[in-house]
Amino acid sequence: MSKAKSIPLFLLRLLALGATVCATIVMVTSHESTKVLNMTFEAKYSDSPTFKYFLVVNAVASGYSLIILFLSSKNLTWQLVLVSDLVITSLLISSLSAALGVSQVAKKGNLHAGWLPICGQVPKFCDHVAGALVSELIAAIFYFLLLLNSLHNTLDLLTLQA
Amino acid sequence: MSKAKSIPLFLLRLLALGATVCATIVMVTSHESTKVLNMTFEAKYSDSPTFKYFLVVNAVASGYSLIILFLSSKNLTWQLVLVSDLVITSLLISSLSAALGVSQVAKKGNLHAGWLPICGQVPKFCDHVAGALVSELIAAIFYFLLLLNSLHNTLDLLTLQA
Repeated sequence: MSKAKSIPLFLLRLLALGATVCATIVMVTSHESTKVLNMTFEAKYSDSPTFKYFLVVNAVASGYSLIILFLSSKNLTWQLVLVSDLVITSLLISSLSAALGVSQVAKKGNLHAGWLPICGQVPKFCDHVAGALVSELIAAIFYFLLLLNSLHNTLDLLTLQA
Repeated sequence: MSKAKSIPLFLLRLLALGATVCATIVMVTSHESTKVLNMTFEAKYSDSPTFKYFLVVNAVASGYSLIILFLSSKNLTWQLVLVSDLVITSLLISSLSAALGVSQVAKKGNLHAGWLPICGQVPKFCDHVAGALVSELIAAIFYFLLLLNSLHNTLDLLTLQA
């Protein structure tokens, strides 16, 4: 791969790393307690298995991004990188969608099921979760671009060798 | 592509089509009403935006699978099929995860948020949703296998031409 091409890719991976680290930190620090009718109501990410899953995936994706960034591309087979990028992108999409589904209930509630919205009581908690979701969305977009780039490179190689 | 190789692929696509059609039908027919304290409590998929999204994705994936099945592989560039398979797999993972997140709340509730589980009241509705989720999980696995197969074929082509 030419150096001119690898610098934007390095930047893309660096930005993806930044986004997943940001999502992890913002989710971990999401915590708010408030008083409703003299009862203390506390909201934190660990109350929901979906948000815990979100955190684990972002931590794993951060670790993966860091390892890939600091290993020279010559030490790795790009086939392995392509498949592991595919797995990480799938995990990011999965945890983002699951957290979005639960956040939608937290924001709007579901009156049919009798679930009341909680964001009116704990707005800071909801802002944190929203921030983490946006960060992970950005990371997922970067990873999707990396995947498309890898596929494009493969097709280029095929055309060159045809 | 040899005929011996294309028959298992055709079968895999046929099974994926069956799974998404099944998920669509099972989700559409998920409906139950019950009486709680003399009040009629009704549960249907359209009460939740997440389940509506699930339905749309499965309908789109079914349409896509059907089109791909009946178009001869010679009429399509496999690059286009690879990228559209990637998009459909991402959509399946996304809608499955979102629906799983909301179903987990329906099954177990979330006492911290004051959301009570509803599956005790509407067990048939929950069984339908669970069936739809399993069907889509199977479809997502088939699509993931199709993607890995496409990537593997690409690598084979590269090796042959190297």
